[in-house]
Amino acid sequence: MTEMPRFDPRDPGWEARVAASFARQSFMETLGARIALMAPGRVELVADEAPGLKQQHGFFHAGVSTTLADTAAGYAALTLFPKGFGVLTTEFKMNLLNPGRGERLVASGRVVKSGRTLTVAASDVYGESGDGSRVHVATGLFTLIALEGMDD
Amino acid sequence: MTEMPRFDPRDPGWEARVAASFARQSFMETLGARIALMAPGRVELVADEAPGLKQQHGFFHAGVSTTLADTAAGYAALTLFPKGFGVLTTEFKMNLLNPGRGERLVASGRVVKSGRTLTVAASDVYGESGDGSRVHVATGLFTLIALEGMDD
Amino acid sequence: MTEMPRFDPRDPGWEARVAASFARQSFMETLGARIALMAPGRVELVADEAPGLKQQHGFFHAGVSTTLADTAAGYAALTLFPKGFGVLTTEFKMNLLNPGRGERLVASGRVVKSGRTLTVAASDVYGESGDGSRVHVATGLFTLIALEGMDD
Amino acid sequence: MTEMPRFDPRDPGWEARVAASFARQSFMETLGARIALMAPGRVELVADEAPGLKQQHGFFHAGVSTTLADTAAGYAALTLFPKGFGVLTTEFKMNLLNPGRGERLVASGRVVKSGRTLTVAASDVYGESGDGSRVHVATGLFTLIALEGMDD
Repeated sequence: MTEMPRFDPRDPGWEARVAASFARQSFMETLGARIALMAPGRVELVADEAPGLKQQHGFFHAGVSTTLADTAAGYAALTLFPKGFGVLTTEFKMNLLNPGRGERLVASGRVVKSGRTLTVAASDVYGESGDGSRVHVATGLFTLIALEGMDD
Repeated sequence: MTEMPRFDPRDPGWEARVAASFARQSFMETLGARIALMAPGRVELVADEAPGLKQQHGFFHAGVSTTLADTAAGYAALTLFPKGFGVLTTEFKMNLLNPGRGERLVASGRVVKSGRTLTVAASDVYGESGDGSRVHVATGLFTLIALEGMDD
Repeated sequence: MTEMPRFDPRDPGWEARVAASFARQSFMETLGARIALMAPGRVELVADEAPGLKQQHGFFHAGVSTTLADTAAGYAALTLFPKGFGVLTTEFKMNLLNPGRGERLVASGRVVKSGRTLTVAASDVYGESGDGSRVHVATGLFTLIALEGMDD
Repeated sequence: MTEMPRFDPRDPGWEARVAASFARQSFMETLGARIALMAPGRVELVADEAPGLKQQHGFFHAGVSTTLADTAAGYAALTLFPKGFGVLTTEFKMNLLNPGRGERLVASGRVVKSGRTLTVAASDVYGESGDGSRVHVATGLFTLIALEGMDD
């Protein structure tokens, strides 16, 4: 229903830039998260089930889903930034739809509107089982700001 | 300006219940988080700076602030639930006000409105330096649901 | 990217029920709003440009876009409720993407997750020109609650 | 618990500017809204009960509460902007706490963080009865952007 807009990156080195910034986030390593997909205006992250990522009922902690959703949204925005601009989330909203179950979480971030200063992005998080079936764990909306002179 | 409403817990064992549920969250241990304060309708959490909790510029990752804010809000709600009801965050919104700097993060959750099914809570996160000075890192609004028969 | 789930209404009289509830909202008449489309899990509203609906720069007031988005989301949820349950928005979040320009606003609400108590819905608002071209004015996420015994 | 920060206006003519911008919003007139209080970083609006402002159960429509909350937040931000900068809401989140009952709605907006580009503000909406008693109708968080060269 909502069509995906098409985006053109303004920095030819966007892929290396996103990958390098992601690699500097020690919290991504703590979560065991990695980049599964990168495209202009779109980034997908994946993290596997692990003993240290649980809430009190044994599901993925909502903080894990949220962190992945936010990071996917932020890097989806960064794919479209000119060189020399860094990305910061200014605010976001999450709806937690189902418990975070599955062998891994997949967070898919996509740009909704790319502005000069502000970018609006959406993220969906899915819990994926071994057989590939998916449950929709969370959906969210994010505002990102482009900061000049902040190396990212 | 916004007065804090007064709340009476309905389960005399609320403190032990909140502490036990918190202790079952392995992700809290991963973050090094602990409960700093518990009162009816109010919970404060603290987590110290650590190498594995950073974003790309060396600050606390927004996912850490958010996880603490959400967990403080959730347990603030749980302090007021009758015995036999568990708590689940259904949605929330965070505004990230300043980079997460400091020796520790303090997340302070408080109930805004306590309903039979839904509870609305607010959380503020502060970065605290060694000298006790504070920066306001984030503020958020949370909706929690009380689920009967879910042991928490 | 996000697939639209398929929904089956539980009340065969859902269309008449939504239309009757909408007709009772005097604020919809104040906005000149009408239902443009109804389907299970989906409702579209339209309101024409009018002198009394403006903000300080002559665009549709964000309060108008938001009211339409919220009402479209609420009735999208109500299409799926059993008879005897009323709908109430418990919370929502809006991102205002572009000024509300155009001859009319179109608000399209759709259910994202239909639960027994809570429904999550999304709404998009577009400004439509005389030539049918559209600008994406706003996007939002809504939580609706089903209240038994509340006639809607 | 959350202390109110102190703010100094940067434009000595802030009061006249806010009043003039408010007067240009025709939608405020449609709602019968007026400014009840202005201070640096804070604006209160009031609107009386009226037949054209209702939802289907006879309460104030959530769109009315939300519009007032958003406008109060926006003008609270504008009180602190330098001359020559206009204000635009980029996004917000509302929690609807109680039905909008009472003889009038009072929306109280206050700045939480005043930045160069972005301002974060909070708004609370109360329904006030003839005897002065109040019910907390809604609470929300708003992000406002300062736009240079936009006359407000």
